[in-house]
Amino acid sequence: MVSLKDIESAHERIRPFIHRTPVLTNASLNKETAANLYFKCENFQKAGSFKIRGATNAVEMLSDKDFNKGVATTSSGNHGAALSMAVSRRGGSTKVVMPYNTPKIKVNNVLRNGGEVVWCDPDQKYRESVLKDVVKENGSTVVHPYNDERIMAGQGTCVKELLEDVPNLDVIVSPVSGGGLLSGSLIAAKGMNSHIKVFGAEPKEADDAYRSLKKGTIVSNKTIDTICDGLRAQIGTKTFPVIQDLVDEIITIEENEVIDSLRMIWERLKIIVEPSCSIALALVLKKKHLFKGQNVGLIMSGGNVDLNKLPW
Amino acid sequence: MVSLKDIESAHERIRPFIHRTPVLTNASLNKETAANLYFKCENFQKAGSFKIRGATNAVEMLSDKDFNKGVATTSSGNHGAALSMAVSRRGGSTKVVMPYNTPKIKVNNVLRNGGEVVWCDPDQKYRESVLKDVVKENGSTVVHPYNDERIMAGQGTCVKELLEDVPNLDVIVSPVSGGGLLSGSLIAAKGMNSHIKVFGAEPKEADDAYRSLKKGTIVSNKTIDTICDGLRAQIGTKTFPVIQDLVDEIITIEENEVIDSLRMIWERLKIIVEPSCSIALALVLKKKHLFKGQNVGLIMSGGNVDLNKLPW
Repeated sequence: MVSLKDIESAHERIRPFIHRTPVLTNASLNKETAANLYFKCENFQKAGSFKIRGATNAVEMLSDKDFNKGVATTSSGNHGAALSMAVSRRGGSTKVVMPYNTPKIKVNNVLRNGGEVVWCDPDQKYRESVLKDVVKENGSTVVHPYNDERIMAGQGTCVKELLEDVPNLDVIVSPVSGGGLLSGSLIAAKGMNSHIKVFGAEPKEADDAYRSLKKGTIVSNKTIDTICDGLRAQIGTKTFPVIQDLVDEIITIEENEVIDSLRMIWERLKIIVEPSCSIALALVLKKKHLFKGQNVGLIMSGGNVDLNKLPW
Repeated sequence: MVSLKDIESAHERIRPFIHRTPVLTNASLNKETAANLYFKCENFQKAGSFKIRGATNAVEMLSDKDFNKGVATTSSGNHGAALSMAVSRRGGSTKVVMPYNTPKIKVNNVLRNGGEVVWCDPDQKYRESVLKDVVKENGSTVVHPYNDERIMAGQGTCVKELLEDVPNLDVIVSPVSGGGLLSGSLIAAKGMNSHIKVFGAEPKEADDAYRSLKKGTIVSNKTIDTICDGLRAQIGTKTFPVIQDLVDEIITIEENEVIDSLRMIWERLKIIVEPSCSIALALVLKKKHLFKGQNVGLIMSGGNVDLNKLPW
């Protein structure tokens, strides 16, 4: 079980290798939501997303023996790029199993960071079986994108920084996909301030976390037909219990709400973020009554967008 | 003649009403250019561009009598929005003569800031005659977007801040259109550091400043068929002598170079800037030998882009 102490240790471990990302505010969005919004900008993070936090933590914790076997993973993109960067820096090699419909910018980010791409069908079950083949063939060490305590602890460092910079937050909104970011955020937030609320924002088109929570046990995604290409993964067996235990609510968001929020952030904050994180603002806009007058932290998880495929 | 002292006074005057914008760096663009690039992010400025600096300075310097007549201007957008914001804050009204092909986001920025739009033909000569009609009808006080010493002094505060934050710059690259920003930048930069170089970046499709400099006297734009919608204005009679006196070189940039640089900034820095300022990076990329090993300041003048009309 990951603890706040693990997150603190992870932070010490990864600090030299990551950016401390800024927290932005925006007067017009504060007015529009009647809340004080604090955007934690992981889109400015190394390799373009928060994923470098968990990846660096996991890679730094590997023994030389495991590391030297080569590292492998499956990823819709951001984890693959981050892992490639962390492994390259330590002087190793990375194989990333990626769905062939991954945005080109995310593929290029893997390649630019020294990773090698192994293509697969977008369906989750094919990803895992292709990864197994890679391990069988090469003896690689797997670093899973989220279902791994080293990753969860690493991702928790983002909320730790946010709360150090804005200690009086009432509530934090995080996207949820496989649950690495949300579980790490929950452990950090609730550990640092027992009164803080944490909401998960999930696309309605890939709502396994929402339905799993409702049913009390993990259920599968029925569809992954969402513009949030970073939120198509299946909730993990290690992340789900943490979420079940600590989350205040997971709220599902429609595709058009994601697109509207994406555009608002681009136009008002003048920053490039992914649909997979503008969903956090979409949640606030959808449920304004929950946030009125509150200090709200929103995790802008990444900025790797394919500019050739914008939804407007 | 505007002096560094005027810029310092302007800075004192406008400081409470503007953002001190951040200066960003980017490892991958540094590598690509073999230089150290410092991006002064006026895209994060109030009303979305540096124009609030000059507009606020001019509006604050108006007598009550002149101010109460109402304020009018012509603008392709950013000055109009900025002037509207500055005038609204002081409690007055603004009429903005705008070409009907102005990007919608810039029109909305004028309206959101309390300005009233008066439409005109995009040709410069019609803009001026429509403005004259507005003044005749309403007795308004005109605040020209650039050919005005109060504006030039206000715009100079941007480079003043940049040099306060990064004192060891070797060279600054600024876009040039009517010349308000470039002339203010020149006076600030050369006044603060006599060794610094300053280049102007101008679209080849609206190259009046480049040709005026070459000829030694002001000549007109032959075309204004450029994606840089903020750089279509005609160099001013007050700005040109300053530029003629102080600029190191004006370099013209092709449309495809502007578009490539725009995309690079969006993808690498994860910030939204206008083509009218990515042109500064385009200049550095085009003339790499001029900047190799140097500390280069680039003025990211604004971020008001119509997301429905992207060039890719």
